[in-house]
Amino acid sequence: MAKEKMVESITSMDEDFAKWYTDICKKAELVEYTSVKGCMVIRPYGYAIWENIQHILDGLFKETGHENVCMPMFIPESLLQKEKDHVEGFAPEVAWVTHGGAEKLEERLCVRPTSETLFCEHYANIVHSYRDLPKLYNQWVSVVRWEKTTRPFLRSREFLWQEGHTIHATAEQAVEETEKMLNIYAEFCEKYLCMPVIKGRKTESDKFAGAVSTYAIEALMHDGKALQAGTSHYFGDGFAKAFEILYTDKENKKVYPHQTSWGVSTRLIGGIIMTHGDNNGLVLPPAVAPIQAVIVPIQQFKEGVLDKANEVAAELKAAGIRVKVDDSDNSPGWKFAEYEMKGVPVRIEIGPKDIEKNECVIVKRNNREKSFVSLDGIADSVKASLESVASDLYNSALENRERRTYSCTSIDEINKALEQGDGFIKAMWCGKEECEDKVKELTGAGSRCIPFDQENISDKCVCCGEPAVKMVYWGKAY
Amino acid sequence: MAKEKMVESITSMDEDFAKWYTDICKKAELVEYTSVKGCMVIRPYGYAIWENIQHILDGLFKETGHENVCMPMFIPESLLQKEKDHVEGFAPEVAWVTHGGAEKLEERLCVRPTSETLFCEHYANIVHSYRDLPKLYNQWVSVVRWEKTTRPFLRSREFLWQEGHTIHATAEQAVEETEKMLNIYAEFCEKYLCMPVIKGRKTESDKFAGAVSTYAIEALMHDGKALQAGTSHYFGDGFAKAFEILYTDKENKKVYPHQTSWGVSTRLIGGIIMTHGDNNGLVLPPAVAPIQAVIVPIQQFKEGVLDKANEVAAELKAAGIRVKVDDSDNSPGWKFAEYEMKGVPVRIEIGPKDIEKNECVIVKRNNREKSFVSLDGIADSVKASLESVASDLYNSALENRERRTYSCTSIDEINKALEQGDGFIKAMWCGKEECEDKVKELTGAGSRCIPFDQENISDKCVCCGEPAVKMVYWGKAY
Repeated sequence: MAKEKMVESITSMDEDFAKWYTDICKKAELVEYTSVKGCMVIRPYGYAIWENIQHILDGLFKETGHENVCMPMFIPESLLQKEKDHVEGFAPEVAWVTHGGAEKLEERLCVRPTSETLFCEHYANIVHSYRDLPKLYNQWVSVVRWEKTTRPFLRSREFLWQEGHTIHATAEQAVEETEKMLNIYAEFCEKYLCMPVIKGRKTESDKFAGAVSTYAIEALMHDGKALQAGTSHYFGDGFAKAFEILYTDKENKKVYPHQTSWGVSTRLIGGIIMTHGDNNGLVLPPAVAPIQAVIVPIQQFKEGVLDKANEVAAELKAAGIRVKVDDSDNSPGWKFAEYEMKGVPVRIEIGPKDIEKNECVIVKRNNREKSFVSLDGIADSVKASLESVASDLYNSALENRERRTYSCTSIDEINKALEQGDGFIKAMWCGKEECEDKVKELTGAGSRCIPFDQENISDKCVCCGEPAVKMVYWGKAY
Repeated sequence: MAKEKMVESITSMDEDFAKWYTDICKKAELVEYTSVKGCMVIRPYGYAIWENIQHILDGLFKETGHENVCMPMFIPESLLQKEKDHVEGFAPEVAWVTHGGAEKLEERLCVRPTSETLFCEHYANIVHSYRDLPKLYNQWVSVVRWEKTTRPFLRSREFLWQEGHTIHATAEQAVEETEKMLNIYAEFCEKYLCMPVIKGRKTESDKFAGAVSTYAIEALMHDGKALQAGTSHYFGDGFAKAFEILYTDKENKKVYPHQTSWGVSTRLIGGIIMTHGDNNGLVLPPAVAPIQAVIVPIQQFKEGVLDKANEVAAELKAAGIRVKVDDSDNSPGWKFAEYEMKGVPVRIEIGPKDIEKNECVIVKRNNREKSFVSLDGIADSVKASLESVASDLYNSALENRERRTYSCTSIDEINKALEQGDGFIKAMWCGKEECEDKVKELTGAGSRCIPFDQENISDKCVCCGEPAVKMVYWGKAY
């Protein structure tokens, strides 16, 4: 009872999912609001998660031959306008810089909403021969899109991301890159964020502004809504033509190269919260948790308890585990609640009785499963617990997705399925935008992607009954 | 002769130092210009240097208890105006966002030129009790200052930096932090960038806008001009008062906390170029070189040569050395010139004759000193060469500074000293701004800093002859 009282109350997920989400963002100290509308402070605990995400992804990018660069944050209006579809897509939502100091600028600059135009200008400068290709570039920056409604991590006017931009001699190589990066994103989400994803292609109406095709990974959240967790675009030579990027090939002919871009953002942190969190707070996948194991000393005033806790911490640290001893004067109950709120994957309790038996208690965050383990080989035990938390998280997210995925062959079936709660609808599609729009209008579920793993649910479009060409995942989305 | 021809020509340092500098920036592929006036692309090779700088500094910050956060890039005009001196200092040089999409904003936002105001707003939200103190925050971001004249790395409208912002219960703790961070910067510059620096305090007229006192590290470049390489500011409680940041102390009284901020930027890369570069190009300190050792195979078409080169590379890599084998079909002479231009600290040549003798040639970038070393224990030999390059670089930079530092007791002596070339002038000062301005007017040398290590050159001010209070370093500056 005493312990219950000390738990900082957050709204229950079932009562109000949106409120539960923002409660976690605030009470786990991930973000804080500011007077800059639609923007947020990412606090140390939230930023440390992002640093871990960056560190792992950056390694995966570099292993596959990518290099980091840094482009300016501004784009002159004339440069943004060079690719017709691109400017149409982005101009309505950019922030415009009109003055430098007291002077009005001759040409407005927008704060980059994405950097294709800047990369293209740069490629036009440095790509001349087939020997200059490919260029496999990436940058870690923030971008700005003037959104009307904002939510921490999911949609904010400024957000942190990485944007890869590559340029290749042939279409085949560019398509291969687009797919490779989608696979890296999927692998990252599943292996490190314990978040199962569907890989697929976006429909024509849902493509990135200026792309030939857009691939995406889609994850299903606790509440049955879909989250687009990453995208990878194939541009063909459209941007190259608009920006006059030409190279001399081996036959000494001038030809257009082919391009891609791909990105994931701090939105992934929103995905982590809504995939793994529970009514006690955040639950973090061990690979990106700032603290992987917290040691809570029990009766810490007794001789030898803190010494032992610190000794264990040193052993875990040496084994590469991110560990913290909380020796503050708060009660153990308060500490339990605090680190549950913060989603620390594993808690270790050590008290005088445990020390006597040369053991400690390990508690897994996700299910509060307790085990008593020997202090001999404690690092291996903690590692095993972390792996166990990770596989539990992945499995229950997958179970949630499977439970909430419905195969439907009619609009009625879709609506009936969605009465049980939001989720993924698998249904066939004729390929017409008209039907895509109508499904959304009649059910609320938009097309999420045309999955690479196709199934044949029926031969007919779920909407018009005409011959189907593809199975599509449909759902309500963040 | 043949080799000389293949060296990409850069302007000689003695002929035109400014041109030599920009030639290196371009030809070592550090930066490329863009259509965004005053902004640049930092290319992979340049960005990799910055990543190494970041990695080392971030480690030093975290070891001393600092945490990373991320603030918005925008500051509402009313927030910027809260601290009087601060807004006066920065408002004339900020970029203003006035429109979001098609709509005019109700209040203009500036793109952060620095983030004191945002941190203060955040601290007012999260600091309430002495238990909340200190907060030791830092962020790695880019900032914008609308400069009229720009040069790559040294002065650009957007630049990358880190800005530390800390808040403490007492003035003593804040002063201690200000000094601690200056010492970390100095240690970093000397140990990792091989760049000797003078630590000191800025005069009143040269303080950061809103600071009680500003400390700086000053380095002397090849051409005798000074570069301010990092600053650390003590704010007292001025910002706290302006932003109404109050905390309850142990006696349950409401009091104002004390603050600091400190920063270094991509300007350090400019400092590296101008401290160590020569007429063959860049010379990089080993600690931040993207490639520490390049292996150039000789007669690489002969059997076994490339295999041996790759074998050596694997051994160096395993020992933690950043190594590259250049097995392209360019000639060895071209490769020598290319990696000299790029400032790779150590070159390793391996050909059939070397392999026969189980040895290779190591050439140090800074002085082209050659040594023949056994392939047994090659990693240790390369490490020793890297250390030797590092200490050579530090020593010759120090020698340059000492040779160009003059103790003067009159304006005439200063002018005579500067006739031999720019450099540091050590001279006494009465403390009056009038004299500070006059020295600059009459000699071109402004006050750089009041060094912590004081010397007593004379009892009188170099300008007015009245009693001196401090020795000051004077010089022309970037």
